Amino acid sequence: MAEQSNKVALVIGAGDATGGAIAKRFAREGYIACITRRSVDKLQPLLDEIHAAGGQAHGFASDARREEQVAELIDTIERDIGPIEVYVFNIGANVPCSVLEETPRKYFKIWEMACFAAFLTAQAVAKRMVTRQRGTVLFTGATAALRGAAHFAAFAGAKHALRALAQSMARELGPQNIHVAHVVVDGAIDTDFIRTTFPAIYAKKDQDGILNPEHIADNYWHLHAQPRDAWTFELDLRPWQERW
Amino acid sequence: MAEQSNKVALVIGAGDATGGAIAKRFAREGYIACITRRSVDKLQPLLDEIHAAGGQAHGFASDARREEQVAELIDTIERDIGPIEVYVFNIGANVPCSVLEETPRKYFKIWEMACFAAFLTAQAVAKRMVTRQRGTVLFTGATAALRGAAHFAAFAGAKHALRALAQSMARELGPQNIHVAHVVVDGAIDTDFIRTTFPAIYAKKDQDGILNPEHIADNYWHLHAQPRDAWTFELDLRPWQERW
Amino acid sequence: MAEQSNKVALVIGAGDATGGAIAKRFAREGYIACITRRSVDKLQPLLDEIHAAGGQAHGFASDARREEQVAELIDTIERDIGPIEVYVFNIGANVPCSVLEETPRKYFKIWEMACFAAFLTAQAVAKRMVTRQRGTVLFTGATAALRGAAHFAAFAGAKHALRALAQSMARELGPQNIHVAHVVVDGAIDTDFIRTTFPAIYAKKDQDGILNPEHIADNYWHLHAQPRDAWTFELDLRPWQERW
Amino acid sequence: MAEQSNKVALVIGAGDATGGAIAKRFAREGYIACITRRSVDKLQPLLDEIHAAGGQAHGFASDARREEQVAELIDTIERDIGPIEVYVFNIGANVPCSVLEETPRKYFKIWEMACFAAFLTAQAVAKRMVTRQRGTVLFTGATAALRGAAHFAAFAGAKHALRALAQSMARELGPQNIHVAHVVVDGAIDTDFIRTTFPAIYAKKDQDGILNPEHIADNYWHLHAQPRDAWTFELDLRPWQERW
Repeated sequence: MAEQSNKVALVIGAGDATGGAIAKRFAREGYIACITRRSVDKLQPLLDEIHAAGGQAHGFASDARREEQVAELIDTIERDIGPIEVYVFNIGANVPCSVLEETPRKYFKIWEMACFAAFLTAQAVAKRMVTRQRGTVLFTGATAALRGAAHFAAFAGAKHALRALAQSMARELGPQNIHVAHVVVDGAIDTDFIRTTFPAIYAKKDQDGILNPEHIADNYWHLHAQPRDAWTFELDLRPWQERW
Repeated sequence: MAEQSNKVALVIGAGDATGGAIAKRFAREGYIACITRRSVDKLQPLLDEIHAAGGQAHGFASDARREEQVAELIDTIERDIGPIEVYVFNIGANVPCSVLEETPRKYFKIWEMACFAAFLTAQAVAKRMVTRQRGTVLFTGATAALRGAAHFAAFAGAKHALRALAQSMARELGPQNIHVAHVVVDGAIDTDFIRTTFPAIYAKKDQDGILNPEHIADNYWHLHAQPRDAWTFELDLRPWQERW
Repeated sequence: MAEQSNKVALVIGAGDATGGAIAKRFAREGYIACITRRSVDKLQPLLDEIHAAGGQAHGFASDARREEQVAELIDTIERDIGPIEVYVFNIGANVPCSVLEETPRKYFKIWEMACFAAFLTAQAVAKRMVTRQRGTVLFTGATAALRGAAHFAAFAGAKHALRALAQSMARELGPQNIHVAHVVVDGAIDTDFIRTTFPAIYAKKDQDGILNPEHIADNYWHLHAQPRDAWTFELDLRPWQERW
Repeated sequence: MAEQSNKVALVIGAGDATGGAIAKRFAREGYIACITRRSVDKLQPLLDEIHAAGGQAHGFASDARREEQVAELIDTIERDIGPIEVYVFNIGANVPCSVLEETPRKYFKIWEMACFAAFLTAQAVAKRMVTRQRGTVLFTGATAALRGAAHFAAFAGAKHALRALAQSMARELGPQNIHVAHVVVDGAIDTDFIRTTFPAIYAKKDQDGILNPEHIADNYWHLHAQPRDAWTFELDLRPWQERW
């Protein structure tokens, strides 16, 4: 456990294994992990885990798609806990569907969750960061950010838009000493969802064929730790066996 | 003027020079141009122009962001006019802004106009096309579809998402004999907006330094005319002097 | 047959169906087709075909990888026949191999044929074109220009380098009124090679599942015919059924 | 200094600051640094530096463009020193020139140095690695790998081809437990060359505006250290102020 500070690492969407691993990693490095999802009770096991390891963490029920809730979340953290040094957006919405059958409501919801929420939260945080002229902004992307596959119109649309947001922020805020990066996760992650829904894929875990969330988190930490003369905007992560 | 048919070329967003030129081009080739924008009265000059040239055209007031209006539009055209053979999405929303100052409302509006409207209308049309196993679906893109520049987070997000929609549709519907393509327009177009707002850019018209809408329309026609053994998904268009 | 001029369309690598179709297409439009390959006798059927159709054509035995032969070729054409208005590079070398087994000699040969020959010939032609401040330079590319697939290190390397050449030339020479473009051909072409080597693929011809060289040629003509306010740098061509 | 092993980190092109920093970094981690350039005497300061720090290092005069010299180099290292666990290709050739004035000889030399040498050496090393089913292969790329700028036809061609080689190797050898990655260095590096040739750029060093070779090296180490369930193929590195 590194020396504790009052610096905050905020993880939006810490409900899954990846968000949890990222929160734990930054807590281990001495950051106060602030983690959010829509219902706070599901965050308790993660908070307990961080506390048990000697780290600091706070959970927040916050709907990242609601401007007022986002404003209140960021105000509260900055006022009561500490300056947000690291921001991670980790909400996904990988739901395939034929473009002919996708409902407008679902098309909208996927964008709202996987892109609009990122805009709202990243902007609110970036406004604070620019006043301090420092900070790190990290977005969890996917292969769908680079390629619109058949049956992924909604998800690819949201992920493409998220990557555009990341690029646009990186180009605007980089010269203000804010490191913006986008991580393209390409492959199945070791989660309960994969284990129960795709057992054949999960079976590849024995040969390191699915991504370990802790190893994803290591790369988020690496990005944050990069000195500013050598910043990465984008890196991809995939298992050695993955076809791409 | 080519032989007239009852086949429809539908142009969503025929309010600007590009949409107008595309509508005129398809009308000249014998298609019934169906053109839409939010208020129908502004379409009258274009309708008059097409009729005066011996072409067929109908104007529709229709908000492409409203599912019910879209359904009604497509129903009406298919029932009363003819089968939609060509669909062109041509609504833009190129409004730059710092990512720190962009309002959530405007970020949403730009996506709703430049991407969600495309999803709604393209899906409604594609559902008809698949029953006939034929049709052409063309999206007007921009450089912002490929690159998130500083101060273009909202527009680039919408255009990236639109391109993802186009790719995803192309991959799903190509094998159903529906040609989906995306045109990357890179440069200023000869419009009233450019003439009045950016006179210095408009002055390049003398050396062919801005895009002539009729030449853009020629490329849309070329895409539609391609035999199905040699379809283009994407092409870019820019003036010879343009830096890129 | 269009009105004849003394303008030359030079096709480097007119040995296959695509190069032949391009030569025929430009001859039909009134250009003098100058076609090359290493041994001139194999060009005779193509020359005969163009002449029989009322077109003008000349064949040249010329090794595009030899600087002196290239210089002599261009000198001869410009002096004895006419100004080169259109240049097409159409030499391929699609030979897959494991990167572990590829011989250095073959790796070099593939680059020499598919990229170095393009540099030598395109440069020699461009030097003439800039003195006239006009001309069109077209490169035949492939999916391998965009993606290095397993077992295609040599071919993908050559095609990536060719695309870089095309981009670099386009950016430098566009503002000198020379239109440089790159065509990504993605799919099997209707050739003797495919017919005899991949009969299962060739069988898709019945459903337009392989590219017709004449349709490829139509797109080369379209690129050349584009007015300079709306030039395309890159377009892709693939059959409707193709997976991509 | 980490525990010493007999594992080799081979840096092809260790003549500049970047190659030197990479060699030092792997030596510090316990690897035997094997460093090459055409003339061995210029390697002595680097060897001295590594030895002084308690590391192991060997220098080799070897022309990476000569198949026989490459074979002998790899044979010697594997026989006399240890198994090559890490391979780094770091030869550049960033020499801008108008595409109209580039000599064929220089166009060839730039490719030979920046791409063909990579093929020869990476292949020779990969043949050893596949027998052990382990290893890391890292290529130093540049922005020119992604974009053919005006006046960079030769360099962009070589760097595009190098990236194709890296992609093709990654896709073929990843499933054999060999991690292949490509690093896009975008910006000036802190070298004598930049200091003496571009003093205005070098002056940005005060604000971390040019890349520190040691920070580049940290990223090469990070790539090598990635567990195989989360491998990166490509990352970019640029100073915070850099325009891109």
